[in-house]
Amino acid sequence: MGGEVVGIDIGGTKALAVIAAAGTDQILGSEVASSSDDGPTLVNTLAGLVAQLAAQTNCEAAAVGLGVAGLAHRSGVVHYSPNLPELIEFPIGPKLQEVLGVRVVVGNDATAGTFAEWRHGAGQGVDNFALVTLGTGIGTGFVVGGQLLHGASGFAGESGHMVVDARGPAHVTGQQGPWEYFASGTALGRLGREAATSGKFPWGAAEAGTADAVTSRHVAIGAAQGEGDALKILDAFCREVGRGLANLVLVLDLELVVIGGGLCSIGEPLRAGVDYWLRELLLGAEYRPVVRVALAELGPEAGALGAALIASELL
Amino acid sequence: MGGEVVGIDIGGTKALAVIAAAGTDQILGSEVASSSDDGPTLVNTLAGLVAQLAAQTNCEAAAVGLGVAGLAHRSGVVHYSPNLPELIEFPIGPKLQEVLGVRVVVGNDATAGTFAEWRHGAGQGVDNFALVTLGTGIGTGFVVGGQLLHGASGFAGESGHMVVDARGPAHVTGQQGPWEYFASGTALGRLGREAATSGKFPWGAAEAGTADAVTSRHVAIGAAQGEGDALKILDAFCREVGRGLANLVLVLDLELVVIGGGLCSIGEPLRAGVDYWLRELLLGAEYRPVVRVALAELGPEAGALGAALIASELL
Repeated sequence: MGGEVVGIDIGGTKALAVIAAAGTDQILGSEVASSSDDGPTLVNTLAGLVAQLAAQTNCEAAAVGLGVAGLAHRSGVVHYSPNLPELIEFPIGPKLQEVLGVRVVVGNDATAGTFAEWRHGAGQGVDNFALVTLGTGIGTGFVVGGQLLHGASGFAGESGHMVVDARGPAHVTGQQGPWEYFASGTALGRLGREAATSGKFPWGAAEAGTADAVTSRHVAIGAAQGEGDALKILDAFCREVGRGLANLVLVLDLELVVIGGGLCSIGEPLRAGVDYWLRELLLGAEYRPVVRVALAELGPEAGALGAALIASELL
Repeated sequence: MGGEVVGIDIGGTKALAVIAAAGTDQILGSEVASSSDDGPTLVNTLAGLVAQLAAQTNCEAAAVGLGVAGLAHRSGVVHYSPNLPELIEFPIGPKLQEVLGVRVVVGNDATAGTFAEWRHGAGQGVDNFALVTLGTGIGTGFVVGGQLLHGASGFAGESGHMVVDARGPAHVTGQQGPWEYFASGTALGRLGREAATSGKFPWGAAEAGTADAVTSRHVAIGAAQGEGDALKILDAFCREVGRGLANLVLVLDLELVVIGGGLCSIGEPLRAGVDYWLRELLLGAEYRPVVRVALAELGPEAGALGAALIASELL
């Protein structure tokens, strides 16, 4: 498993690439480029990132891993990615492999992040855990029975779309009441705005300029500073996170939940709130071992590093 | 893996035991006894079943497997079983092992049934599938990535308690809107009674004597015979089954769902209805391979046979 590998986390607005010593978390260099949902343009962008990393570090990648949000088939075809709406049924893996002349493996971004946290982060040594990233939406990845869970096609972990309130509000996906509607970073922003608009979050409204301008960031900053209203909003939010997690624990019997994504910056108030509500909402919690809740350790490069680690397995 | 093994499915009212050639589906004999939620009484009952099977077949079991609904820890301790409410934190595995002098392994009943359907039934050769048993409640078990899913403690597959309607009706578990409330055999009976009471299922009311006496059995018999109102009730029910299955497919990326449990007697109308609603309710179904829906093949002995197969792995 010698040599270097590149991992690229392909998001809706940017593609973040790292080059690492194969099978390790030693990141030798990183590059960012604008993303695109036009297939050929995206292939050019990714090939350019690989070339830049080679020039930067004087290392040629022996394999490349891509992490893509949504339905990224293990064959290398992106069936559908909500962040890259025009990239439908596009064989990004084979196309990039053709250009680069090295093997390219494609996976889900959250699954890749889970692999990284498992090998080098908060999930080390744990055989049954979830990584849950709270950002624009909710991403999840799982290790079960000591194996990274890919699913039949590589589509496992679309848990943000799990319906938890079947008669609840309509989400952008067209579903009613999916978990992501209530428990993503977007949801935290909505809760903050609602509170600010009804006069229950004056600190946030002042910080943002107007009540309408409150986002999850204002709740996060307030909560991290111990601001009372922000903590109340965060508590209501953590309840929604806990509700979906309780479902996942019932299905998978997890021993650990790792919270990642942008909201991780809130730190301990977020971790403790999720921990509390998971216990409250988990049926039979009194008869089960405690499910630990921890913060992710690897930061925003986890997805790219995980993609590099998955590519390392090709060597 | 020579010799014979006993598998026992321990339900709320009865314990069903089979003796089989280790690692096969060759059932050599079976016995049934009344169940009990008094620990020592239950141990005596189970030891008696093993002795009766030995006498019946002239074969001594080399190992014994127990399948128990609820939280049956892999250490052999039943933490809590909803069907055996007094059997709390009882070490049924070690106690029975002491009496019998052969190794005893304890697992979840639905997980055991899943193992049987995987090795010898509808799940043969499939690496990612669920068994979903529709009875008094909902039991689920999973094979993921070519492995039987046990979870951290052996508690995986409590999916019937997954909340799908967070502001929905209260269930006997104290939760609001768990999947089981809407999609178990009990739920089908309730839907039938509601229809009969409001004059929308006269066939059922006549069959049962009164509208209040309608159960899932009357809906099942009507649907199997093609009775129009029963088919409408079944369709509404299949929608609720499909809703929870869609969640499980999003989380696990399953390629097959096997429907088992008492309601299986309905046959093709049930299978086809679940198949239809799973496609309708699964987000992104148009971008995913079709998830097949099949009926279980092994019948009511699946749990006991699966427990015997798990015990075979000890040899």
